[in-house]
Amino acid sequence: MYRSLRSVQRFNCSVLSLQRHLTNIKHRSVVGAAINPCRMASSEYRIEQDTFGELKVPVDKYYGAQTVRSTMNFKIGGPSERMPIQVIKAFGVLKRAAAEVNKDYGLDPKIADAIILAADEVASGKLDDHFPLVVWQTGSGTQSNMNVNEVISNRAIEILGGKLGSKDPVHPNDHVNKSQSSNDTFPTAMHIAAATEVHHVLLPGLQTLHDALAAKVEEFKDIIKIGRTHTQDAVPLSLGQEFSGYVQQVKYSIARIKAAMPRVYELAAGGTAVGTGLNTRIGFAEKVADKVASLTGLPFITAPNKFEALAAHDALVELSGALNTVACSMMKIANDVRFLGSGPRSGLGELILPENEPGSSIMPGKVNPTQCEAMTMVAAQVMGNHVAVTIGGSNGHFELNVFKPMMIKNVLNSAQLLGHASVSFTNNCVVGIQANRERINKLMNESLMLVTALNPHIGYDKAAQIAKTAHKQGTTLKAMAIQLGYVTEEQFDQWVKPSDMLGPK
Amino acid sequence: MYRSLRSVQRFNCSVLSLQRHLTNIKHRSVVGAAINPCRMASSEYRIEQDTFGELKVPVDKYYGAQTVRSTMNFKIGGPSERMPIQVIKAFGVLKRAAAEVNKDYGLDPKIADAIILAADEVASGKLDDHFPLVVWQTGSGTQSNMNVNEVISNRAIEILGGKLGSKDPVHPNDHVNKSQSSNDTFPTAMHIAAATEVHHVLLPGLQTLHDALAAKVEEFKDIIKIGRTHTQDAVPLSLGQEFSGYVQQVKYSIARIKAAMPRVYELAAGGTAVGTGLNTRIGFAEKVADKVASLTGLPFITAPNKFEALAAHDALVELSGALNTVACSMMKIANDVRFLGSGPRSGLGELILPENEPGSSIMPGKVNPTQCEAMTMVAAQVMGNHVAVTIGGSNGHFELNVFKPMMIKNVLNSAQLLGHASVSFTNNCVVGIQANRERINKLMNESLMLVTALNPHIGYDKAAQIAKTAHKQGTTLKAMAIQLGYVTEEQFDQWVKPSDMLGPK
Amino acid sequence: MYRSLRSVQRFNCSVLSLQRHLTNIKHRSVVGAAINPCRMASSEYRIEQDTFGELKVPVDKYYGAQTVRSTMNFKIGGPSERMPIQVIKAFGVLKRAAAEVNKDYGLDPKIADAIILAADEVASGKLDDHFPLVVWQTGSGTQSNMNVNEVISNRAIEILGGKLGSKDPVHPNDHVNKSQSSNDTFPTAMHIAAATEVHHVLLPGLQTLHDALAAKVEEFKDIIKIGRTHTQDAVPLSLGQEFSGYVQQVKYSIARIKAAMPRVYELAAGGTAVGTGLNTRIGFAEKVADKVASLTGLPFITAPNKFEALAAHDALVELSGALNTVACSMMKIANDVRFLGSGPRSGLGELILPENEPGSSIMPGKVNPTQCEAMTMVAAQVMGNHVAVTIGGSNGHFELNVFKPMMIKNVLNSAQLLGHASVSFTNNCVVGIQANRERINKLMNESLMLVTALNPHIGYDKAAQIAKTAHKQGTTLKAMAIQLGYVTEEQFDQWVKPSDMLGPK
Amino acid sequence: MYRSLRSVQRFNCSVLSLQRHLTNIKHRSVVGAAINPCRMASSEYRIEQDTFGELKVPVDKYYGAQTVRSTMNFKIGGPSERMPIQVIKAFGVLKRAAAEVNKDYGLDPKIADAIILAADEVASGKLDDHFPLVVWQTGSGTQSNMNVNEVISNRAIEILGGKLGSKDPVHPNDHVNKSQSSNDTFPTAMHIAAATEVHHVLLPGLQTLHDALAAKVEEFKDIIKIGRTHTQDAVPLSLGQEFSGYVQQVKYSIARIKAAMPRVYELAAGGTAVGTGLNTRIGFAEKVADKVASLTGLPFITAPNKFEALAAHDALVELSGALNTVACSMMKIANDVRFLGSGPRSGLGELILPENEPGSSIMPGKVNPTQCEAMTMVAAQVMGNHVAVTIGGSNGHFELNVFKPMMIKNVLNSAQLLGHASVSFTNNCVVGIQANRERINKLMNESLMLVTALNPHIGYDKAAQIAKTAHKQGTTLKAMAIQLGYVTEEQFDQWVKPSDMLGPK
Repeated sequence: MYRSLRSVQRFNCSVLSLQRHLTNIKHRSVVGAAINPCRMASSEYRIEQDTFGELKVPVDKYYGAQTVRSTMNFKIGGPSERMPIQVIKAFGVLKRAAAEVNKDYGLDPKIADAIILAADEVASGKLDDHFPLVVWQTGSGTQSNMNVNEVISNRAIEILGGKLGSKDPVHPNDHVNKSQSSNDTFPTAMHIAAATEVHHVLLPGLQTLHDALAAKVEEFKDIIKIGRTHTQDAVPLSLGQEFSGYVQQVKYSIARIKAAMPRVYELAAGGTAVGTGLNTRIGFAEKVADKVASLTGLPFITAPNKFEALAAHDALVELSGALNTVACSMMKIANDVRFLGSGPRSGLGELILPENEPGSSIMPGKVNPTQCEAMTMVAAQVMGNHVAVTIGGSNGHFELNVFKPMMIKNVLNSAQLLGHASVSFTNNCVVGIQANRERINKLMNESLMLVTALNPHIGYDKAAQIAKTAHKQGTTLKAMAIQLGYVTEEQFDQWVKPSDMLGPK
Repeated sequence: MYRSLRSVQRFNCSVLSLQRHLTNIKHRSVVGAAINPCRMASSEYRIEQDTFGELKVPVDKYYGAQTVRSTMNFKIGGPSERMPIQVIKAFGVLKRAAAEVNKDYGLDPKIADAIILAADEVASGKLDDHFPLVVWQTGSGTQSNMNVNEVISNRAIEILGGKLGSKDPVHPNDHVNKSQSSNDTFPTAMHIAAATEVHHVLLPGLQTLHDALAAKVEEFKDIIKIGRTHTQDAVPLSLGQEFSGYVQQVKYSIARIKAAMPRVYELAAGGTAVGTGLNTRIGFAEKVADKVASLTGLPFITAPNKFEALAAHDALVELSGALNTVACSMMKIANDVRFLGSGPRSGLGELILPENEPGSSIMPGKVNPTQCEAMTMVAAQVMGNHVAVTIGGSNGHFELNVFKPMMIKNVLNSAQLLGHASVSFTNNCVVGIQANRERINKLMNESLMLVTALNPHIGYDKAAQIAKTAHKQGTTLKAMAIQLGYVTEEQFDQWVKPSDMLGPK
Repeated sequence: MYRSLRSVQRFNCSVLSLQRHLTNIKHRSVVGAAINPCRMASSEYRIEQDTFGELKVPVDKYYGAQTVRSTMNFKIGGPSERMPIQVIKAFGVLKRAAAEVNKDYGLDPKIADAIILAADEVASGKLDDHFPLVVWQTGSGTQSNMNVNEVISNRAIEILGGKLGSKDPVHPNDHVNKSQSSNDTFPTAMHIAAATEVHHVLLPGLQTLHDALAAKVEEFKDIIKIGRTHTQDAVPLSLGQEFSGYVQQVKYSIARIKAAMPRVYELAAGGTAVGTGLNTRIGFAEKVADKVASLTGLPFITAPNKFEALAAHDALVELSGALNTVACSMMKIANDVRFLGSGPRSGLGELILPENEPGSSIMPGKVNPTQCEAMTMVAAQVMGNHVAVTIGGSNGHFELNVFKPMMIKNVLNSAQLLGHASVSFTNNCVVGIQANRERINKLMNESLMLVTALNPHIGYDKAAQIAKTAHKQGTTLKAMAIQLGYVTEEQFDQWVKPSDMLGPK
Repeated sequence: MYRSLRSVQRFNCSVLSLQRHLTNIKHRSVVGAAINPCRMASSEYRIEQDTFGELKVPVDKYYGAQTVRSTMNFKIGGPSERMPIQVIKAFGVLKRAAAEVNKDYGLDPKIADAIILAADEVASGKLDDHFPLVVWQTGSGTQSNMNVNEVISNRAIEILGGKLGSKDPVHPNDHVNKSQSSNDTFPTAMHIAAATEVHHVLLPGLQTLHDALAAKVEEFKDIIKIGRTHTQDAVPLSLGQEFSGYVQQVKYSIARIKAAMPRVYELAAGGTAVGTGLNTRIGFAEKVADKVASLTGLPFITAPNKFEALAAHDALVELSGALNTVACSMMKIANDVRFLGSGPRSGLGELILPENEPGSSIMPGKVNPTQCEAMTMVAAQVMGNHVAVTIGGSNGHFELNVFKPMMIKNVLNSAQLLGHASVSFTNNCVVGIQANRERINKLMNESLMLVTALNPHIGYDKAAQIAKTAHKQGTTLKAMAIQLGYVTEEQFDQWVKPSDMLGPK
């Protein structure tokens, strides 16, 4: 149901496209070579085969037999459980990089160039519909690696005018997967995908939130309010100071994510089957990492120890731990915002949150802090994802961890959700937060905590008597202080100044 | 991007469909009244409004302004993060049940019947494309409740020949949501969805696995093998006995899930906004639960305390805890199967697992235990999901828990993944497991543990000497026992019988 | 450092004690035979040996070489990481039960009776100082089983007048461990300990909390207050209704724990090394379970499948899942109480919580909700413990799960903490909670939500206008309704009755 | 029962000790001033009071009324649930540092010096018995801060010859707690304790493990063995290469912990009640951090934002995340070791693990990998602890997170267990691991994977035929290759060299 139906005809199409693509390649001007629209409706099939026999492949799909076989063997979850598209795109980057390096090492340039073109299409998202496999497959992600190999092979064959499924002139294993194994390419794609999501979604999202909160610090710097510890009234601080704590949390969130990245930038590529690099050439690993770095603009390097890079995914557990910490920060901030904005009459009511949607058809002023709710739900999800990643990360055996697809799914999900939710929370809540100055002042002035300021002048005992009596009688400190005769009105106003209580002397 | 583009024309369509639907209703023969295909391409819009103003709604969608507004305010995650379709379908069931009860209490039968028809379509999955909202919205699920109300209202209006978006003659709030609040309907839909997934996906899946394993117990009952404790060689047991432990785990998995269900069968419907049942009629809650029970065939009842049913979702935390326990069982079983099936030459090699796909293009006999890997990844995910559910469940405040969408997403995901993976693991692995009798016998006969059987005959000291010397010299117990002169070959064969070591005397 | 130093002399003590014990046994009147006080200071040692050689054992300790060896090999954590004393006591029960059954099957009555006496002392806690081993030992708990065997053996030897460490006439393996293996006794002790803690600590604690909350429901039944959803003002409910939700949560907490117990009552005893029951007698397993049931008063039975009972601990994962659900309930209740009791001036202030300790030396009225804080910390710990239990439970291999000590430590910790915290929370907080009726009424009367009640009389639009204007101008509904001329004061008072909004009509 | 009984008399003791202490102070030679042994047995009490009234305090204890009151109000868990002693010692460091700075700012030097002496005793562990409070108290740790204040105050009073409980001349609040609040001192102590445990226990433990594994890499560098992916046979690698992956994991474990430390080095001291620094002096925060840094030798600095430092404990969540990642590494390594060492006859048997204790009284050669088991249990515990820390960290409200004691308990527990277990695992397992060269060679030579090396010489098809037939007939590659006539014995030996398969060409 998620596929477009195509009814276009394919008369003479293959010849035309073949010519166009060959021309493109010849002239080296093929950025974004058009995907062949001349394919059959999905009710038609071609026959492909792997070592287990023949299988029907939809003619409008570039994938091959191993992909189809996986869909048959792993009917677990639906489309929402597919291998994250970010992993597929990362594979596109990797396959291009590998083809370029293989070309340097002698791979037929015509084949290499076609692979590069096809890989670019995968990386750019043009072929997203050709990756139907779910996360719940082999734990090495081999089937998704083969899915990529098959798609690139067939697309490259098409570019070169060959017959889909023929594996000629571009073989999925011999050419697209050359010098590679699922065991090193899948973790490489995991790291590329994670780093990319972090850089393009998560960090910008956090920065957006950081900046909006920082603006509020400035905006709220002169608003003095009652502090709350143990959820109970405490000594005052400025609303700007309160928000500065949130800013610090987000600032450190960014720092924490960055601190986890060095080990994510390490790529397993070049380790092949068990980490030895069997069937690769000396220098292949380093060159591939360089290419990936230049294609992505991120500082990828080759992993110094490939055995670790295949058998463990501690780097992703570490990143997930950083995401988990960010989630804690987000939960704290969003919780505070909704409690400080609670009301309008029976809550704390210090913040006025933007109204984004009808809260209730019956009660004006009922602003549900829905952005806070989305954020705290995201935070809880990230914490859960982290446990899944942890369990997967701890259960590798011997030369290979086989919880790879599950781990990367959760890491990407956490990074994306936190990034998106940060932007949504910022745009739809934070920037519109207003201080309810009247309410803040009222609570401030009613507070019994200000009695603290009288200690140096009349002593603890009399101050305590003022506060206790005021509390008992439900009146203000000032009224009681004057009534008890310990201070004059002038003295009280002079000595009890919340603005003098906001820092060390 | 996941939507089909439609290019059909709408000439005169509306009139025709209107007539057809009215006819259908009049004749009470409208099971599955066809959904109007005469709608505009998605690039065309109609204007709908809510209390916040006007919004463009795609003409080919039944949802309205509040749904559109949610898509604008919550750009968090993509299509794979949508509210689980099972929740939508459960809402279909609930809305139908409520309409029926409201009809009993006086709702215009024409309106009620149209709602019932439209709700059935929601329940049956015909309108799945009309529910675009993501999980990461308000924590009460209000927007998804309104999405359902809008779709049913518009579809009912269409059935009755009205104008989409007019809220006339079927109002989303006044009629579809009558006697309801998001606060009680969403948790009701959560429970319906969870119970349905458990009964239709999870329990059948577990039963399938149970039966396949039980068949293996019978098949393997006479195969005696070395036991392993601490991963080290131990006294023998039969392969059937070993598998009987797995059977017991799955049997108890089913029992655990069932033990958690009584509280899931309790429905919040009738509690409305805070649990008091304000704006409902006495008896409404009970009647709705009865209707839902009869529509689903599951023993739903009205929750005895609606305050708890809205403010906490302990029942789902409990169910998730049962799912978590099932995940532990699955992890254990799948781990054992892959280790017992490890090899072919350098592993334990006692089981021969079915070959389902090419393991490697180069090495015949390399059967990767991919089904075990999918299962163990699922298990890890379920454990992670459980933590997310736990955190959400613990963070309700006052009269409402606002982690509802996140919680049900995870519970449904866990139930579905375990159910699907059980079937996949059964069909593609368990049923095809063969015992490698030769290997099992070889290991059995080489074992030093059998020396235990000599203790009563020659004493512990001599038996220990046999075993220690055999271990040191790398020979068999029998050879060493005879060589040391403590037993004859006949005695050894008579006394050392693994088949006598499988139970109490 | 947790041990009492003893300076008593041992002159002639051994002879005296020997005579006394023999006399006791002879006369069968030895309930609680006194523990020999005539032992050396801990700086003196005796020599014991195991198969690895000689080791020094403190003369004032009953344990032997294997225990000492474990303390040397596992220097992980300090005294606070010791095997939970409940496990040791459970072993006392089990060893007594096993000795009784072994006596039935022919064990020398003199030996059996001495074991029974010594095991009783272990069960009663008299010998707690003799169990120094930490949780972080072998994952089967073998060393703790041997610790118990050694202590009982030496104590029984002492009772019978023998020489400590001589293993004569009571051998730790041959007699105390007869028909047993660590592999079945340790899980048996786990289940006995868990069930006992649940019955003697957790369930009574929950019942105490339940009853105190239920009393508050009655006390608060007529106090009508503002409801809060999304932390925002909502329609009213009674304070009694609000507390009834908590009561329901605790009631279900008890139900959930009980629902998990049937599988905890199953005992592994009789399975010996791998579950087959090798070296036991037919009927041994059932008889031991019967004895344990009668000794503890709990409905223990023999596990129907011993392979599962050794290789998996799903029953404890399940119980931990129930504890986790209870923790969610506790977090919710304690959070509500502290927020509803927040203030005294700047919080919600609806509840007055008991003052138990100086909150601050400076501010009267600052009641920190410390019991809520202890409870929520306990809840978080239980949720963490649950993950540890889950991970341990999922990682069993073949015939034995070797995360046993860790698992039971966490289960017992969770059960105890929840039980103790429930009592502390009840006695030091719940029973003393008072409603701040004045504050509750004030918030109630100020609420804009009550406008809902005018809808049937003046219509939604006018009602909305009243509410919106009142909100904008910061006045009351009543004042605004009258000012706008839509109702008279009498009408308002007649129509807007919170007490009519507490249930269905 | 955990207290030493003291029977010494106190005749004239106080005078003597008073004189001694005063002398000591005068001469500035008081390193480790002896603790007064002249106190009463614990059955005797003195009366102390706080603002809630009088309480009996054991005469042999330095703590006061607030400590006693906490023991009465929080009967949750027993001695093993006490505030970790590392927190108490960290408080000792902090209180000394604060006293020194307060002295600079004008605190009476006599009082300051007495506090410094007493604080040193707390820091050095001499007064451990005087801190009876459990973790499950107020979530701010106020009661433990007061416990420390009371102990230091009374001990300082004693040093100065005053009367215990008189608060004169050293007042627990006015002097010991000067310029401090529980709200900033407790998190400061948390960070000091965590950093100290990391530096003195965890990192040295990890380094020990690292070095031992690195030595094995060297020792095993020439041993070529079969690789295993998916638990199945794969291409070869050297045993040294396999261990190099573990070394990398431990190396990165150290790096990860260190990467989390910068934010742990930030101290909240100087923030006082809500983070503003009310009642402190400008510069106090920085000076205290400097003092703590110099006392501990660790690079502590004052937290740049005190609001964040009180209200959130993200730094500990982050550290816990690093500990969690280390736990994953440990689980992987210990699992591999036990599986590679499984046997002796029916497992993989490639490693020979040291025998540390009797595995079984009956079977020689049964080496239970008990150190691996302790390590994997520790790993599971750390993962669970991490969830508890995460939940606590996410649930701070407003100006104070009140899950402090629970959080630090878990962080310290994780750090200590990992540190201790690393040493235990190293000393009792890793250093003694031997390679079973014979077994490794046998498996290596039987492997079918080596056929890969023939591909370039005879082509994939013939190579596959050799492997498939060999697998089917249960013979070796070499025998089959020769039998099929594809290679000569010389060719096979020349071409199939595992030693050539260990890296890129």
